[in-house]
Amino acid sequence: MLKEIPLAKVYQFLEPGPVVLLTTALRGAANVMTMSWHMMVDFEPPLVACVVSNANMSFTALRTTRECVIAIPALGLADKVVKVGNCSGRDVDKFEKFGLTQLPGTHVAAPLIAQCFANLECKVVDMRLVNKYNLFVLEVLGAWRDTKQKDPKTIHHRGYGTFVVDGKTIALKSRMP
Amino acid sequence: MLKEIPLAKVYQFLEPGPVVLLTTALRGAANVMTMSWHMMVDFEPPLVACVVSNANMSFTALRTTRECVIAIPALGLADKVVKVGNCSGRDVDKFEKFGLTQLPGTHVAAPLIAQCFANLECKVVDMRLVNKYNLFVLEVLGAWRDTKQKDPKTIHHRGYGTFVVDGKTIALKSRMP
Repeated sequence: MLKEIPLAKVYQFLEPGPVVLLTTALRGAANVMTMSWHMMVDFEPPLVACVVSNANMSFTALRTTRECVIAIPALGLADKVVKVGNCSGRDVDKFEKFGLTQLPGTHVAAPLIAQCFANLECKVVDMRLVNKYNLFVLEVLGAWRDTKQKDPKTIHHRGYGTFVVDGKTIALKSRMP
Repeated sequence: MLKEIPLAKVYQFLEPGPVVLLTTALRGAANVMTMSWHMMVDFEPPLVACVVSNANMSFTALRTTRECVIAIPALGLADKVVKVGNCSGRDVDKFEKFGLTQLPGTHVAAPLIAQCFANLECKVVDMRLVNKYNLFVLEVLGAWRDTKQKDPKTIHHRGYGTFVVDGKTIALKSRMP
């Protein structure tokens, strides 16, 4: 049920600031973490910046493989998303523990997550700010959305497990993409 | 009615991905733009990354003065926020045109915006990714919230003038700040 997202529309998924999952695969071992520190950097090809703490196992995988998937969960996954953020891939297989299904990507070895409504396959394109800020610049190589999930509500972290959920949508007259 | 926000709590305002206003002041001339491409980079001192297109007048002001204010508007300002994004400071004094009130900051020459519920005074601390990506790293020097605005709803851009408004808040058991 995955439909490809045109690269020019990728920013519409990340710009609103949803909590996301980040998957990596290092020497065949997939891992997943929870992430809120990301932003769009360019429209097309879509560039995304993100901060991954060097205390996380995912940091080493991302720096080594230079590949990842940003998977965007809807509200129904909120409980799992927080639990993924509360433990480490050093101690547990988070996919198995939380019932998250890996799907093979087209562009990278890191897995997509079947339960997420959008998945963005990414490669690292700039590491200049990694040593000082743990800040990676990614290029989105391919993007997928689950057409079965209609009007997904994303969650936005407010600190200490408090999240605001997407509410109503409004349309204003903008000249901007 | 502005109350200082502890620097350690600044991330709680930006992490959810709200549309913000960015003010600058170049040689005494203040300007303001609308921005959605920003993210937290560190908790304390709070570091924020943002992308400001080099087509914007604000880009030159930010690169030259290395100072700005990130002002966070609530839903009631949505119409003005979009209009600010639809025009250029080259053609118009946006503060006057849209009835946005400048307040003097404590740390920087760029003005706070009285109508916004939070204002973050920032200096540029890293320009290494400016030439290639228009990406600035900022440090928040001081932060203020308007205590008269209770439970402000922020807006999150979805592209082409469509915005999702903050909905309900949920609390989950997280070990993370």
